[in-house]
Formats: sequence, structure tokens, C-alpha cells
Amino acid sequence: MTMLNVVTEGPEKSQDQTNSDFHLAVAELAEAVGEDHVSTDDADMERYSATIIPWERKCSAVVFPGSTEEIQKIVEIATKYRLPLWPFGRGKNWGYGTTTAVHDGAIVVMMERMNRIIEVNEELAYAVVEPGVTQRQLDDYLKENNIQLWSDCTDGPSDGSVVGNALERGIGETPYGDHFEKVCGMEVVLPDGSLVRTGAAHFSKSKTCNVFKWGVGPYFEGLFSQSNYGIVTKMGIWLMPKPQAFNSYVFELRREEDMPIMIDKIRRLSLQGAIQSKVHIINDFIGLALVGKYPHHLLNGESCLSQETKAQLRKRYNIAPWSFGGGIYGSPAQLRAHRALIKKELSPYGKLMFVTDQKISLLKRLVSFLKKARSSSRFAGLVNRLTVRLIGKPYEYLEAFPHIHSLLQGVPSDYFVGHCYFKTKMERPRTNIDPARDRCGLMWAGIVVPSTGKEMNELLDLVKPLFEKHRFDFSTALMLANPRSIIALMSIFFDREDAEETARAMTLYNEMCETTAAAGYQQYRTTVAYMDRIMQHSPTFAAMANKIKQALDPHNIFAPGRYGIGQVGACDTSSCSGV
Amino acid sequence: MTMLNVVTEGPEKSQDQTNSDFHLAVAELAEAVGEDHVSTDDADMERYSATIIPWERKCSAVVFPGSTEEIQKIVEIATKYRLPLWPFGRGKNWGYGTTTAVHDGAIVVMMERMNRIIEVNEELAYAVVEPGVTQRQLDDYLKENNIQLWSDCTDGPSDGSVVGNALERGIGETPYGDHFEKVCGMEVVLPDGSLVRTGAAHFSKSKTCNVFKWGVGPYFEGLFSQSNYGIVTKMGIWLMPKPQAFNSYVFELRREEDMPIMIDKIRRLSLQGAIQSKVHIINDFIGLALVGKYPHHLLNGESCLSQETKAQLRKRYNIAPWSFGGGIYGSPAQLRAHRALIKKELSPYGKLMFVTDQKISLLKRLVSFLKKARSSSRFAGLVNRLTVRLIGKPYEYLEAFPHIHSLLQGVPSDYFVGHCYFKTKMERPRTNIDPARDRCGLMWAGIVVPSTGKEMNELLDLVKPLFEKHRFDFSTALMLANPRSIIALMSIFFDREDAEETARAMTLYNEMCETTAAAGYQQYRTTVAYMDRIMQHSPTFAAMANKIKQALDPHNIFAPGRYGIGQVGACDTSSCSGV
Repeated sequence: MTMLNVVTEGPEKSQDQTNSDFHLAVAELAEAVGEDHVSTDDADMERYSATIIPWERKCSAVVFPGSTEEIQKIVEIATKYRLPLWPFGRGKNWGYGTTTAVHDGAIVVMMERMNRIIEVNEELAYAVVEPGVTQRQLDDYLKENNIQLWSDCTDGPSDGSVVGNALERGIGETPYGDHFEKVCGMEVVLPDGSLVRTGAAHFSKSKTCNVFKWGVGPYFEGLFSQSNYGIVTKMGIWLMPKPQAFNSYVFELRREEDMPIMIDKIRRLSLQGAIQSKVHIINDFIGLALVGKYPHHLLNGESCLSQETKAQLRKRYNIAPWSFGGGIYGSPAQLRAHRALIKKELSPYGKLMFVTDQKISLLKRLVSFLKKARSSSRFAGLVNRLTVRLIGKPYEYLEAFPHIHSLLQGVPSDYFVGHCYFKTKMERPRTNIDPARDRCGLMWAGIVVPSTGKEMNELLDLVKPLFEKHRFDFSTALMLANPRSIIALMSIFFDREDAEETARAMTLYNEMCETTAAAGYQQYRTTVAYMDRIMQHSPTFAAMANKIKQALDPHNIFAPGRYGIGQVGACDTSSCSGV
Repeated sequence: MTMLNVVTEGPEKSQDQTNSDFHLAVAELAEAVGEDHVSTDDADMERYSATIIPWERKCSAVVFPGSTEEIQKIVEIATKYRLPLWPFGRGKNWGYGTTTAVHDGAIVVMMERMNRIIEVNEELAYAVVEPGVTQRQLDDYLKENNIQLWSDCTDGPSDGSVVGNALERGIGETPYGDHFEKVCGMEVVLPDGSLVRTGAAHFSKSKTCNVFKWGVGPYFEGLFSQSNYGIVTKMGIWLMPKPQAFNSYVFELRREEDMPIMIDKIRRLSLQGAIQSKVHIINDFIGLALVGKYPHHLLNGESCLSQETKAQLRKRYNIAPWSFGGGIYGSPAQLRAHRALIKKELSPYGKLMFVTDQKISLLKRLVSFLKKARSSSRFAGLVNRLTVRLIGKPYEYLEAFPHIHSLLQGVPSDYFVGHCYFKTKMERPRTNIDPARDRCGLMWAGIVVPSTGKEMNELLDLVKPLFEKHRFDFSTALMLANPRSIIALMSIFFDREDAEETARAMTLYNEMCETTAAAGYQQYRTTVAYMDRIMQHSPTFAAMANKIKQALDPHNIFAPGRYGIGQVGACDTSSCSGV
């Protein structure tokens, strides 16, 4: 492959030399950032090599810089000893590989200590943050300081990095949900140790660092997303002025066969500005995963649920074939106008419910009351029958609503991360959620599709049979990336304690990636397990990426192989298929 | 300067060798694209070296490729003979340098023959075009084929290139006015002759080329804007679905001192989504320039108009100190909601008028009637008095309204380009406008400012005295780049037949650029005369830009010196100041 011809230098030396060099390097790192902030001990190596996908790569050390200057020192040391660095905001990259690298032996650079919120400008509606700042922290900061701005967040971990997610081009929930689109102004350490500021920030004392995205001259910020050309140490991100009024809404499609119509309606409403948020449309199986545990007892010796069992579950929990939540934002009159358009287009095809803050307050009180009632086993059954009678859903869904409502206002929640525990035998924890530590099994493939019903049907027709063939339950969430495209996030849930199932998950994943790529679909982001192949269909693009890599990082120090750039040798795919 | 240390190879050889090489190269170019599509004749050289700014660089040849393959051949020939190429869509870069290069001797690559509209997708609302496609052509195509989409356009020439403007990151008028933001999917010829597709396009047979902007892996499209890393031969651009309803509006500020309040209101309304278009806020002098001729007879021997004369003119033409036009788009209810917000915020500070398509039809009939009446000198005075009585404005403004109204629907017009002729002695032509041929004098500096009243005041306080010092009338249009930043486009009108005034214009321009840069302001785009200095305040950024240049274009063939990248030697600024 073309891409492999360009960057060939790997950080490989003889074993002895490597060992002694490595120890010298670690000593220098300790000097640079402080003893307490470097680790090579076994427990830490295990922790930072843990993941929830079938992928095993061992890191060699982990280092926790406290400042940009310390990162520059780390880069200098790594370059001196030719050791690969693998940088992370906070490493909560669930479903894509957590903190594991493409190759063994990486030094993980974890920026969680760099967690300053450097500036929030309320008037111009932006924040400047370091890579260690979490979604929760930013939201808390705004609330505590009574700043009338909302940050966006994903439905992922509340302690995930704002910067990390934006650089991975993650998608949140509100109108500001295309996180990379909202980035404005970066400070980046390059492999040569120099500090570059991008966007309008590249001017000294720039007045428009965080308000004018493109700067002057080439726009470089895109270079630092999904790549390995630099370590971003500071980032401006646009925030949403708190709207005068807000409603959330939930739509449940009545008939499976109307899915294409629903997709077409969503595209048009989004182009019209009536659908403002990044709606996530979940299928029935994700609906189950959000609130329950996998019904292992209904498998009847099979590897996945039968159609009949699924139909029964759908009926029992009153789950729609497809459903989604969204938000509308603006003045009361703007809300009325958007709501009227949404109602007109969607109501004929299912159940549409708008929810105000007042309704949610009531609901929260109800949930809290019911929770107490349920804790007495005497009333548990009664509560379930009651809520089904009242809202047509079991209690668990009632509990989910307030989380959806506040997520659409940019308030993060760990509620949804819980679904990583769907197929493990252990109960999902309520606090201190760590799916990698708890050996959850979940792998994501985010396939991008033009937002038409016909196109979505074609993709699902291609992918569904693969789930059947490899005996997994078909699980997908369709995330509106922009009005014109949707990311079909395929979830493969598996039981990591089951070696056969884990290997089978990897086989399905690989086949799904290859089949969709051959058909012209690309992923919006990928797992560390697929990075070696992500550019196989774009040789000139890969060659250009590697020429730039060679120019900026001639010793291939920064994350070799990340997104296929600076890959050292070809990946042995057989080693990728199983744990 | 750091940037100069990186790329040093210029296309310089001994004179004899250069001459004979050059003739061989031209012969090969003729073979590649056809005899008729290469020129070195004097008239053409003069035409393609003509500009309306005080800048003289002679090109050595102009070549008109008809296809991507021909561009690849041109690149091969230029590389063989080490000749610099200077590529353009159509070269209507008025006010920034037209088709002139940073250095003498460039071969201008003019892509006007590559003018195919390759695809328009009505459902997904995008077009794919070649660099020769004009704003007018795209709009006509949509109308002729009854496609319910609107393209955006600038208030610049209707025969300007859609691709060229987007790559220069030009700003149009409608909600789709940030042209580069709406780019999705490029095909680019690199200096090594390879063809790269960017965004999601880099996948073979990509399904999401023109609907998903970021692709997977690093986002490279920004690299090809305001730079010289590649020649873009095809571009996807998002179009706006024709809204159910549309109104334009005009706002005239009553009191000069309320400008900061107006700016703050505009920011808030834009963040709220009530102001949707890219409003252009013009000062009184631009108001004059749009419709009239410079009142040379009122100069009284001075170089610019006195405050008293300006006050009289303002009164006579009833021109507001600041005014702007905008559009609202959506369902009738959405329009009502936006209109209510705009009215509430702006009405207390001036005159706000909303205009429907129906009103404009009436107005057009009135204009056509009055035009006839005016053609008889007997009625000219009467018509003027009548229109002043009716709408408080002289006839000329009446004529402008329909152009503003349709511009806000993305319909291009040459009406506004006419203002380039403001200070020339000749009448502005109604058709076949060519300010460079007609030796107009106009130079632009687009300074980016955070969109607060306080910030705008500070910039104007910095810049206005420079206009006074160098005896030019202060002219500016404030263009909303996004809700958070405004481009203050400073216009220097000058009479090119007057050598002293022309030199003085350049002195003002240079001082304005230097003063604002030193104070931390950047330009959103720059003239060819300032490119050698545009990166002087960002040495690490420049070093990175030049490293990438070296990697992709080691012989510095593509547009050496464009935006300060791959500059050959330092520019002698003294040679830049005058014609």
C-alpha cells in the first residue's frame, strides 16, 4: 500500500539498547514532570492497556504532564530516545479503544492534570480550556458562576475530555453538537517542540483567537483532528447562549417500514432549522440496552435473541421500532414555529411528545416517589403496572426521561454510559462507572450515510445480514451529523468473559468495516483496531498524510499509526481478531 | 524571519537558460492544452497583469486548461522547467490584486474553460462544480432547471468563480454566506501531479463526498484555502433549500454614537438565529459610493471631503451614518418570530423596513417608470423630488433596493461592483464591467474584529485617524463573518490617474496593515501586495506552513509567496508603494 512506503522509520532498536534507553528516558521524564507523575508499574500498565474492544496493546509507561512546558519537555525526551508517545485528554474513548495504541510499547501521555478553564467569555459565547477539562467540569463551572451559556456534551462519560472529544470529531446533542465545527483557536505542541497557535490565534496578541475560525492563510486546525501531527494543549470552543425558552421532545415511530419516511422528514426539518439538535435515533435493541440487562435467560441456547423473543420484549416494554429525542431552542415564538413544523411532519407517523422543564420537575418527583415504592418488593410490581398504565412504559423509561431532557441542554450524565454493561453479568454501577475495568464488551463502527431514507435502507440492508450471519443482535443509533448526513453507529455488544463470542464480535466488526468500505461508506471515526486499514481505499490521501507526517514528525514520535498515519509495518490482522 | 529560512529554492536560473527553457515550456504547454489555450502575447500579458491596486507584477504566460488531466500535464511541464504557476478560477479578485502574483514571471493558470456544473442534488441540497463556474451560471442553472435550491453569492462580480471565492474564504449574503464553511468534498491536483480527494471524498466511490464535511483521518480541506499547496479542480458546495417564505429588511441607524449598541444587538440577534444572513453594515461614505460618483467638484483643492461637505451630502441624500440590509428565511411562522425579535431590538435605534417580494415587484415597476421619466431632462428634477418625498431617498437608492433584495436570495448582480468606479473620472458602465481594464483604483483591507460595540469602536478609533492623516475619506463595510466576529472591510478609493494619490493610497494601506497587526488584529484575507508580510507576527505558524510546503511542493512551483508561503527572498517593500 502506498501509505506504507512513505514513513518507514519506527522507534525500533535492539532489545538491550531499548531497555537501557527506556530506563534513562523514564528517569528524565520523572525529572521533567515529577516522580509522582510518571508510572511504569504493573497495575497502571494494566489499567492504561485496558479496553472494552477485543484489542490488546501494552503501553510501556504513562506520564501526566501538568503544563504545556512539561509536554514540550516530554516531546524532547521522547525524541532523544526515539520513543513513541500516545497522547490523550482523559482517555475515555469507550468503544473505540480507550487508551490503547496501534503498537505495543507506547508512552501514554495523559493530560488530566491540565484541567484549567482558562477563559469563559459570556458576551462572545466561548470558552478556552485545557485538554483535561471534563464535560461535567465545564457545565458545573458555567452553572456555579451563573454564566448564561450552555456547553454541549455527548451522551458519553461526564468525565470525558471536551478537547479530546472535539479532536476525535465527536457528536453531542444540542445545536452545538458538531464539536469540531465549534472549535476556534488552538495551541499545539509540534513534534519539533515548537508551539503553534492556529486559526486567528496565530497572530500574537490576537483579538479574534476564539471568535474567527479560519484565521488568515491556510486553515490548519483540521490537521490536528483524527491524526498525530501535534499535541493540542489549549482549545477555544463556542458555547450556546442559554435560550429564552427550551422544550425537549420524544418521537416514537409507529411502523418499522416508515423508517425511510422518518429519515427524509428529519433531513427536511433539519435543513429548515426546525430540528436544531443532533437527534440520535435508536432502534428497538438500543432501547432495551439503555434501561435493562441483556435477557440471557431468553436465549434458549442460541447466541442472539430470536425474532419472536424480540417482538415479545418490544411489546412488553412498549418499545417503538425507532425512536429519538430532540430539543427546540429560542424565543417562545421561535419555539412555536419550530414545534408546528415538527408536529406537522412527524405526527402522522408516530407518537410525538413535547416536554417542558415544568413537566420534567413533576416527573422527577414522581420518579423519586416510585423509586422508594419499588424498593419495597411488595410494591415493585404495582409500580411497574402503574407506570405502564400512565405513560405506556415501564418504570425504567420514566427514569431515563429527565436524563434525555437535560442532555439536550448540554448537561452531561453517566446514565447512558451504563449501557456498556448491557451484556456483562454484573449489575451496572450507579457511580464510578469504568467499563474497561469492569471488562465490558462493546465495539462501535460509525458508518456515515447521506440522510435520505433510501440511502439509510440500503446501508441497513447491507449491515443487518452481517449481524445475523455472526449471530449478534442488530443494534444501531443513527446520529444526525448535519442536515445532509447521518452517522449510523453500529454497536456490537458482547460478553468479554466468553472467548468465542469475543472473537466472533471481532469477526463481525472486521467484516462490517470491510464490506461497508468496499461499498463506498466511510466511518466518521474509528477504533484503534481498524486504524491500519482506514486509509486503504485512499492511497493518494494517505500518501499526502504521510508526507506531512514526515515533514512535521520525521522520527515518527507522535502516536505512530494513529488513523493510519506513520504506521510502522503492516498490522497483522490475525492478531487483531480475538483476545 | 523564520518563514524565509525554510523554502529557499526559487525558480531562478541564468537569463539565457531561462529564456530558452521558457520557450520550450510554452511549446509543451501548447501541445498539452492546444495552441489556442496558451498565450504570451503582449496584450494578454498586459490584461492578466492589470489590477486596481497599486501593484505591478508581470506574468510571463497565461494558460487555459480544459480539464483536470490538462492541469496535471501543466504541473508536470512547470516542474520540469521549474516555472512558477499562479492558478485562478476566473481571476475576478478585485481589490485584492486580480490575477497578479507576488513575483514577476508567473504563468497564470486560468480555469475559466473548466466550467461544468457536474452535479446538483436537490434532495441533499448541494452542487459539485469546477473552478470556472460563475456565481451567475450556478444561479441561472438552478432557476432554468426549476431546482428548489438557492446558491449564495457575494456582492462582487456575477462572473466571479464560486470555487475561487470559497477558497479565498469570501463572505456572501445569505445564511450560507460563509462560503468556505459550506465547502464539502474537493478534488485537488498536488504539486507531484497526483490527484487527491478530500473530506469524505477520499474514499473511492464515496457515498458521502458532498454531504459529510470532515471525512475520516485529518481534515485537509482547510489546507487548500488561502494557500498554495494544491490546485482545486472540483468542489462540492452546500446550497440552501428555497425557503417557504422570505423577507429582506433594511435598517438605518439614527445616531452615529449608537453604533456600538447596534453591533451588540446584531451579535445577540445573530446568536439567537433571528439575524440569519451575513449583514453588511455600510458607513455613510460607502452609501455614497454605491450609487453616485465621487463629488470631485466639492473638494475645494483638498484631497478628501471636509466634515461639513460630508454632512451636507448626508443630508442631501438622506444617508444614515450606518445602515445594513438582511434577510429572514423560513416558514411564515418562523419569519414572524425572527421579525419580532429584530423589531424589538433594533426599532428603538433607527428606521427598520421589511420588504416582501410583492413590494419589490411594485418598486421595480415604479423604477422602470421613473427611469423613463428621468431620461427626459424636463422631468429629472421632478422625479428626484418625488422619490425623496416618497421614500426619503433620491432615485438612485430606489434603483438599488431590488438588487439588495435579490442578493439576499443569492441572486448575483454587477450593480455593486460599479462602486469600484467611484473615484475614476469615467462613468460607471452598465454592462461588461472590468475595473482593472478601466483603471479603477480601490484597495481592500479586511480587518477581523470581535463582534462587540466596544471592540468595534476601538478598531475604528485606531483606523480612522490614519485615513485622516493620509487624507482619504473614511470608507468601511462591516461584514458579519459569524455571530462572534465582524470583518471591517476598509476601502481605499483612489484615482489611479493621479500618481501622488495612488502612492498615498499605498502608504495608507501599508500603515493600516502594520498598525492593526501590531495591535493584534488580523486580516480575513489579504492583497497580493501584503502577502510577504501577512505571517510576520506568527513565526512558528509560518515555519509549519513552509515545512508542509517543502514536503508537498519541494520545487516551489505552485504560487510561490502566496499568503507568505514559499516566498522567494524578502519583498522589497519600497517597490510595493506606488505604480
